[in-house]
Amino acid sequence: MNTISVIGGDLRQTTVARLLRDDGFDVSLYGFDSGVNTYCIKKAGDISSAAQSDILIMPLPLSCDNETVNAPFSGNKIYISDILENVRKDTILLGGRINDYLKGEFSAYSLNWRDYLLREEMAIQNAVPTSEGAINIAITETPETIAESSCMVLGYGRIGKVLCRMLSSLGASVTAAARSCSDLAWIRNEGFTPIHTNDIASAIGSCDIIFNTIPSVILDRRILSVVSKDALIIDLSSKPGGVDFDTARELNLRVIWALSLPGKIAPVTAGKIIKNTVMNILNEMGV
Amino acid sequence: MNTISVIGGDLRQTTVARLLRDDGFDVSLYGFDSGVNTYCIKKAGDISSAAQSDILIMPLPLSCDNETVNAPFSGNKIYISDILENVRKDTILLGGRINDYLKGEFSAYSLNWRDYLLREEMAIQNAVPTSEGAINIAITETPETIAESSCMVLGYGRIGKVLCRMLSSLGASVTAAARSCSDLAWIRNEGFTPIHTNDIASAIGSCDIIFNTIPSVILDRRILSVVSKDALIIDLSSKPGGVDFDTARELNLRVIWALSLPGKIAPVTAGKIIKNTVMNILNEMGV
Amino acid sequence: MNTISVIGGDLRQTTVARLLRDDGFDVSLYGFDSGVNTYCIKKAGDISSAAQSDILIMPLPLSCDNETVNAPFSGNKIYISDILENVRKDTILLGGRINDYLKGEFSAYSLNWRDYLLREEMAIQNAVPTSEGAINIAITETPETIAESSCMVLGYGRIGKVLCRMLSSLGASVTAAARSCSDLAWIRNEGFTPIHTNDIASAIGSCDIIFNTIPSVILDRRILSVVSKDALIIDLSSKPGGVDFDTARELNLRVIWALSLPGKIAPVTAGKIIKNTVMNILNEMGV
Amino acid sequence: MNTISVIGGDLRQTTVARLLRDDGFDVSLYGFDSGVNTYCIKKAGDISSAAQSDILIMPLPLSCDNETVNAPFSGNKIYISDILENVRKDTILLGGRINDYLKGEFSAYSLNWRDYLLREEMAIQNAVPTSEGAINIAITETPETIAESSCMVLGYGRIGKVLCRMLSSLGASVTAAARSCSDLAWIRNEGFTPIHTNDIASAIGSCDIIFNTIPSVILDRRILSVVSKDALIIDLSSKPGGVDFDTARELNLRVIWALSLPGKIAPVTAGKIIKNTVMNILNEMGV
Repeated sequence: MNTISVIGGDLRQTTVARLLRDDGFDVSLYGFDSGVNTYCIKKAGDISSAAQSDILIMPLPLSCDNETVNAPFSGNKIYISDILENVRKDTILLGGRINDYLKGEFSAYSLNWRDYLLREEMAIQNAVPTSEGAINIAITETPETIAESSCMVLGYGRIGKVLCRMLSSLGASVTAAARSCSDLAWIRNEGFTPIHTNDIASAIGSCDIIFNTIPSVILDRRILSVVSKDALIIDLSSKPGGVDFDTARELNLRVIWALSLPGKIAPVTAGKIIKNTVMNILNEMGV
Repeated sequence: MNTISVIGGDLRQTTVARLLRDDGFDVSLYGFDSGVNTYCIKKAGDISSAAQSDILIMPLPLSCDNETVNAPFSGNKIYISDILENVRKDTILLGGRINDYLKGEFSAYSLNWRDYLLREEMAIQNAVPTSEGAINIAITETPETIAESSCMVLGYGRIGKVLCRMLSSLGASVTAAARSCSDLAWIRNEGFTPIHTNDIASAIGSCDIIFNTIPSVILDRRILSVVSKDALIIDLSSKPGGVDFDTARELNLRVIWALSLPGKIAPVTAGKIIKNTVMNILNEMGV
Repeated sequence: MNTISVIGGDLRQTTVARLLRDDGFDVSLYGFDSGVNTYCIKKAGDISSAAQSDILIMPLPLSCDNETVNAPFSGNKIYISDILENVRKDTILLGGRINDYLKGEFSAYSLNWRDYLLREEMAIQNAVPTSEGAINIAITETPETIAESSCMVLGYGRIGKVLCRMLSSLGASVTAAARSCSDLAWIRNEGFTPIHTNDIASAIGSCDIIFNTIPSVILDRRILSVVSKDALIIDLSSKPGGVDFDTARELNLRVIWALSLPGKIAPVTAGKIIKNTVMNILNEMGV
Repeated sequence: MNTISVIGGDLRQTTVARLLRDDGFDVSLYGFDSGVNTYCIKKAGDISSAAQSDILIMPLPLSCDNETVNAPFSGNKIYISDILENVRKDTILLGGRINDYLKGEFSAYSLNWRDYLLREEMAIQNAVPTSEGAINIAITETPETIAESSCMVLGYGRIGKVLCRMLSSLGASVTAAARSCSDLAWIRNEGFTPIHTNDIASAIGSCDIIFNTIPSVILDRRILSVVSKDALIIDLSSKPGGVDFDTARELNLRVIWALSLPGKIAPVTAGKIIKNTVMNILNEMGV
């Protein structure tokens, strides 16, 4: 059985470690001094020994500064260079949101690495905690029930599909906006009201809650100007976001930009999703 | 068209006033000095004129001290006696949670009153915001998604039915506990796992979230001792609650006793429900 | 373990016998010569020995002529009198739809009997196969999908509740008619459109499929005269039915009166339901 | 407004004609002598005048013999050559399942044609009537309710997705088989049990109903040999089908190969779907 080091990260990564341990792997943790349940998993003594495992599992995001590992539960900094200088030739490194700078570093060391955040099935699974997080915000931040509300969901990709289903099953009236004939046919098949993205101005005025999942500025001045003053806009799209925030502020519209919901709202589930994805990667690599 | 005074209360009561105004009634508000949207509804000048409307709609609860109206948005105390001394012979007073003392007072003034909280359809409708509130707590307070969780719902009355449906539609595995053969058959019909209330000890140990809706101490020491340390207990039952709280604390179990969720989580919806119920009462009275 | 004879009936009763055998009871069959799978259950040699078991389970309906047991798979007639003359003093007889004449006979023999059809949980469970049967008719007999259709369900009892849920989950637009404020609140809670039974004339004209579950003539000339000529009426109510059939014929409306669907559409499930109900009865009798 | 001729076909095509007429088009019918409601739409006098409309809408399939139009409600044969010899240069012909021979013919006449059956959104929409048809068969042909049954759906494409949702919402326990990590993640997201197509032999033995949507022989001797003798196999895949039919017969397994369900089970809905698709094609062509 392969040796695995889980280095840095938060409750998601300790969950990954626990689940791999339960599957029978030889798992060590590094970067968890305190404040988090480590499930009696053994700790690596130092970073150089941690780096010598067959497989290194790094957090999401792997790093925030390109120099150290993202490790909020570690008292000491964990330098990426200390890892790279100690890895073996056949080590596999798996991490999340590996940027171009890090890719260059990893290539310089001929490291065999994969970014699990790029996997389609990871994004699909994350749509569930993201949608629950969005619903949580909607319940907390509006004075009506979801069941009474009229919702619009912009975009019918992974999050859009799951979110529409959940809102509708809670009783909301759901309109979903998309562009392709296929997406619009699916929206209709599932029982939601389809609307072409170009036409949302005609329907958005009567919506109580507007969820955006499209990562471009869909909610611009033209659209925002017809949104109800009582409506709540929840933007789930990654940067640059889907809302012209300045105009929204000027119009006194309530906008909540909710990023990275899985790790915030359901870290254990988010850890399970990383673990499932990591297993798929390793299976495909023949490990 | 009848004249209506809405006296005291919070956002629920201003919603009642707005909806009745939109239906064409001649509505006045009393007890809302500041801090709440009063939808441009006219204010009664003083309590004696407010009390002379055909119909008086009082808050839920009507009073917390048996002396003054529950009126958190009023700068001044509103004395119940000031109302009673000014009502007309044919005035109808509608309020929520009218206790024995107040009943006595009203009888002394031969007042025609009704407690809308006692209406079955009000309790049925409130099951929706209560369930959404419970789900809100579950999403916020557990590190897993609802979709991944194993839930037990104790009691299959109004709240139990709605909560089971919502949890299941979000993907949870749902076990519901009841006593009667009919309730157990319904639970099975709806696709949930039925369990007799006497047998919950055998299944509760594997549940992540336990919702209680039964207003008697179901979760006693015998049951609590088999609940998982990672589980969350959400008690939705009114006093005395369904949990032996001392034992739960002793066993280090997490318990949240969530009361009066509709008014907290969805005051506008809760106001609509009061308004619907008030209309049913007035219709049945032939008003 | 008690001895049980299952006497007469169809696939439902052989299912009852099989399930009781699988639970460990000593079961004998009588009245199944051919044409039905008897699951290798032993046959009683003659009716007098069959009648001497601790428990006799009779079909639904027990008899169609008050003289013989309803036994379509028996080559010979099974006389009720032959059973009564051979039962023991402590025999328990369980059957379905036991009419006044048979009650008199059983009393004359001081027989300890129960009619399982009268049990609430049996009716609740039967609502599922009844609703599936109704949906089956609707799919077969209309040229549109359920998903595209506008349905009205008259009555919100056991069948109404299950049928509304199934239709809605298949994508239909569902209006449900009831009279009480509580039922109307439940209909709204579940996401269907509520309408008071007195007001159906205003909405029934736009419905594609009308399901009646109320056992009195709701669909009279006044209502039928506004039903669309393209609509299909499916009457699920027991005699006298809920439709003025003569007027419907005169108006060229399509009406299907569908009775006893569980035994027709899902005899094995119907047998399971009888078995579950029989077990509840025996448990309550302390057997 | 363009002139449209609807030539040949069945109730689906008269529905297309009716809906286009209701949208304001100048529609003529040809090939409907009797036995079908033509909604008072004007008839083209002869095929040569019918062929001179701006747009010709042909049936699905356009032809069964490459010589005449598929026209079951026409007393006379409608020769394709008679149409081709009369079309205008700018005529647009829209038909379903246009094979290579017909493509050659159309090219020889420089005809501007489209096959609406190839459109993705048509296949998506047809998944609804196909799934209702499959459920209809399952209710009719099994002695248990869908609600009590354990179902396996092979393939998670358009039909698989809709069918799984409908079966599950009726209460069935649903396992869905697919190959990609993404499809398996979606299956799990939606609350069904995922299984890799390679592994179905391990789970299929306990299934009551097996639905195949994959158009290759998935259910071969190895798999069929573990299917329960009481199970029903419903094959929804187009030729060559997904079942080794000879082996199934040899093993005494019940298989129903159900093709072209939308036109059979819901011709009016199938007509609406053709009309929606035709409109999308025309919009994209700038007509």
